[in-house]
Amino acid sequence: MFIDDTIAAIATAAGEAGIGIVRISGSKAIEIIDDIFRANNNKKIYEDQRKLTYGYIFDFDNNEKIDEVLAVYMKAPHTYTKEDIVEINCHGGMIPVKRILQLVLRKGARLAEPGEFTKRAFLNGRIDLAQAEAVMDLISAKTEKGFEVAFDQLEGSLSKRVEEMRKEVLELLAHIEVSIDFSEEDVDEVTLDYLLEKSIKLEKSMTKLLSTSDTGKILREGLSTVIVGKPNVGKSSLLNSLLREARAIVTEVPGTTRDVIEEQLNIQGIPIKLIDTAGIRETEDIVEKIGVGKSKELFNKADLVIFMLDASRELTNEDLQIIEMIKDKKIIVLINKTDLPNKLDIAKICHLIGERSIIKTSLKEEVGLDELENVLVNMVYKGEVKSNSNLMIANVRHKDALERALNSLKEGIEAIRRQMPMDFIEVDYKNVWDYLGEITGDTVGEDLIDHIFANFCIGK
Amino acid sequence: MFIDDTIAAIATAAGEAGIGIVRISGSKAIEIIDDIFRANNNKKIYEDQRKLTYGYIFDFDNNEKIDEVLAVYMKAPHTYTKEDIVEINCHGGMIPVKRILQLVLRKGARLAEPGEFTKRAFLNGRIDLAQAEAVMDLISAKTEKGFEVAFDQLEGSLSKRVEEMRKEVLELLAHIEVSIDFSEEDVDEVTLDYLLEKSIKLEKSMTKLLSTSDTGKILREGLSTVIVGKPNVGKSSLLNSLLREARAIVTEVPGTTRDVIEEQLNIQGIPIKLIDTAGIRETEDIVEKIGVGKSKELFNKADLVIFMLDASRELTNEDLQIIEMIKDKKIIVLINKTDLPNKLDIAKICHLIGERSIIKTSLKEEVGLDELENVLVNMVYKGEVKSNSNLMIANVRHKDALERALNSLKEGIEAIRRQMPMDFIEVDYKNVWDYLGEITGDTVGEDLIDHIFANFCIGK
Repeated sequence: MFIDDTIAAIATAAGEAGIGIVRISGSKAIEIIDDIFRANNNKKIYEDQRKLTYGYIFDFDNNEKIDEVLAVYMKAPHTYTKEDIVEINCHGGMIPVKRILQLVLRKGARLAEPGEFTKRAFLNGRIDLAQAEAVMDLISAKTEKGFEVAFDQLEGSLSKRVEEMRKEVLELLAHIEVSIDFSEEDVDEVTLDYLLEKSIKLEKSMTKLLSTSDTGKILREGLSTVIVGKPNVGKSSLLNSLLREARAIVTEVPGTTRDVIEEQLNIQGIPIKLIDTAGIRETEDIVEKIGVGKSKELFNKADLVIFMLDASRELTNEDLQIIEMIKDKKIIVLINKTDLPNKLDIAKICHLIGERSIIKTSLKEEVGLDELENVLVNMVYKGEVKSNSNLMIANVRHKDALERALNSLKEGIEAIRRQMPMDFIEVDYKNVWDYLGEITGDTVGEDLIDHIFANFCIGK
Repeated sequence: MFIDDTIAAIATAAGEAGIGIVRISGSKAIEIIDDIFRANNNKKIYEDQRKLTYGYIFDFDNNEKIDEVLAVYMKAPHTYTKEDIVEINCHGGMIPVKRILQLVLRKGARLAEPGEFTKRAFLNGRIDLAQAEAVMDLISAKTEKGFEVAFDQLEGSLSKRVEEMRKEVLELLAHIEVSIDFSEEDVDEVTLDYLLEKSIKLEKSMTKLLSTSDTGKILREGLSTVIVGKPNVGKSSLLNSLLREARAIVTEVPGTTRDVIEEQLNIQGIPIKLIDTAGIRETEDIVEKIGVGKSKELFNKADLVIFMLDASRELTNEDLQIIEMIKDKKIIVLINKTDLPNKLDIAKICHLIGERSIIKTSLKEEVGLDELENVLVNMVYKGEVKSNSNLMIANVRHKDALERALNSLKEGIEAIRRQMPMDFIEVDYKNVWDYLGEITGDTVGEDLIDHIFANFCIGK
């Protein structure tokens, strides 16, 4: 891979703010900054490594003062990319960072691709691939818990666990290879028993790690949840109550259509993407209004459907239509308005929807919201104590690699049990080794690496 | 003013990005960072002033690692606020900066108000008020030229000019006071002539400075421009051509109504807010569709109206209606489709609209756009060579203060001419002195200062 050139990008978010940073990495960084920066103390910036130095960025070609800045030079290899890095802290806002970046590019840097700084940190061996991916998860984390999981991953918790597993696989492979070398004789029982015992132990720990992936994915990407119910059942009240409860980030994301908006909630550290059929909410027949096709699409996108019923009214045809549409989804049934006299045939609902969580609420009297939160949280953490550990599989790529590794291991175990030839068995264990290596990036190709970093933000 | 406490804020823009910065200013900054930061080299951060130090932010109360950061301590008084400053460069994104800020606040800092860092720079005497205001203009500048004007102001060009004027006023006041002391005798002719001559010179330079304010305001806030014309006259083509020409920032700002959107263009450094009657553009009778009231409101908001006519069609009633609505505005008339046979009575148009710029274009054949740009630029710079100077009055508050100063000076000159008593004249000159002082902040009250900084962004 070609990483000889010097790259530059704006490292802070776009917008009006106090400070903006232009970051340069590569062997020409020091030459470029020397060419455009004058320190007020008249020192060269490389005389004072890592010192935030006050001065001005100049375009000497046009004899123009560009901005008042603090600049800093960090010498390789103890930097983010393990290359020479220069950071220019200038005024925030569109123009200053853009002016400086343009000047830096004119002086010989190349505009960094998305994630290219982190990619270099990986290629130069400072972090492995799982750690590199954690950087982007950190940045895009939606809740504290999601951040913590990503941070642990950056600190190497996942990589360490995977490396431990690989070490065990390597040890098993060594045994297998010895057996192959002596393949004239029969493989002795002791070796097979040993392989089997070790493999089953490994299978268990891989299964355990894999079981964290649903929770991990939700903490990383959010639980996409649709609230559905006929008009006047209390959908807006539920939305408002949840928004009030959500102690942290609440933003409004415009949906793909005007009828659907998304709200981001944070319930006990779980990021919830609430898909709200806003425009049509309290006006008309939901099924008729959205249309069956679109409703299905909406429900298919969702990880969870909160289905609301009105305790003070009998089941209607519309309720039944909704049940029909969502019956294959993960559902929480919310029976609202329990402050009013009950007219709802709850037994019938149980019959229709089967073994699902049913929660009784009176949003008006603020009853039942805690239970809803708890059911939600339990659903995500599958009943385990939630703060148990931050070691999780949060990334679909990791999950996929781990699944393949686990399958190969199972095939290996099966092959041992059936006393297949050792070179047969070896193939399975080599696969386990390779697939696990994809997580940390030991056994991935250039294409995949490019693909992974392309999803980063620019400047990281 | 109470500036003993220590303030903190997020100094970078919100959003997913490589780096986020939490900034702390005040006497407790060093105590706070010492409490939450561990450098990897085990040194205390104050041992190495201004050094970007790698380490971790910890919440020792919960024994929790918060983030991997670069932290730096800058010792008073050579800092932005002239106070001790600590900056924590952490991962970008919502959560890391928020976590660190919350921790910093828990450790005794107070959340900074908008602009409070810059306000402290002003209150502590590092910069004057005009310079402080320039900081925000820098950050919100929409074009390079706007940035340059703000940057010159930050560097003190406006303050210096105002201070020169104030010095002259002070000298005149000294002469006046001497005359008052000897008021028993008649004021001699020589003194009056001297005062008059000096005052007229000052009046000229103040008038000259004031004359930059229209240009300055446009460079700072943008030229709000409406394109108007009957259907099919080429409004969308013009919009598209201008957008193509605009080499820099092009963003879409949702307007107040669904029918109206704003586009930001940059034409030769002039930020143009193009108010585009998008929804109704090519469909129906514009006057009928928007309604006369709303059209008027639209045109009243505009600094400039570009009125488009179709060379291949005769004047219609609709054209006349539009002319009626916009006749009091600053107008550029664009006669489009000049590639087709002419059917338009141009003499009549000249008669109807009077002395206005008329430009002939064929947008289809890309003819006439350059002329439009030049007319626009000339209109903004009033025919002066545009890169002449970056010393301008860009701020309405400065313009207002300068206007009042100039009016008082004129009254003073009048009073001298009419040989009014010297203590009468003195009042006018004291006003000139005070009003000019408002620009640099020498003579403004706490309320006004609070009001000015309230319009800043947080973290600056």
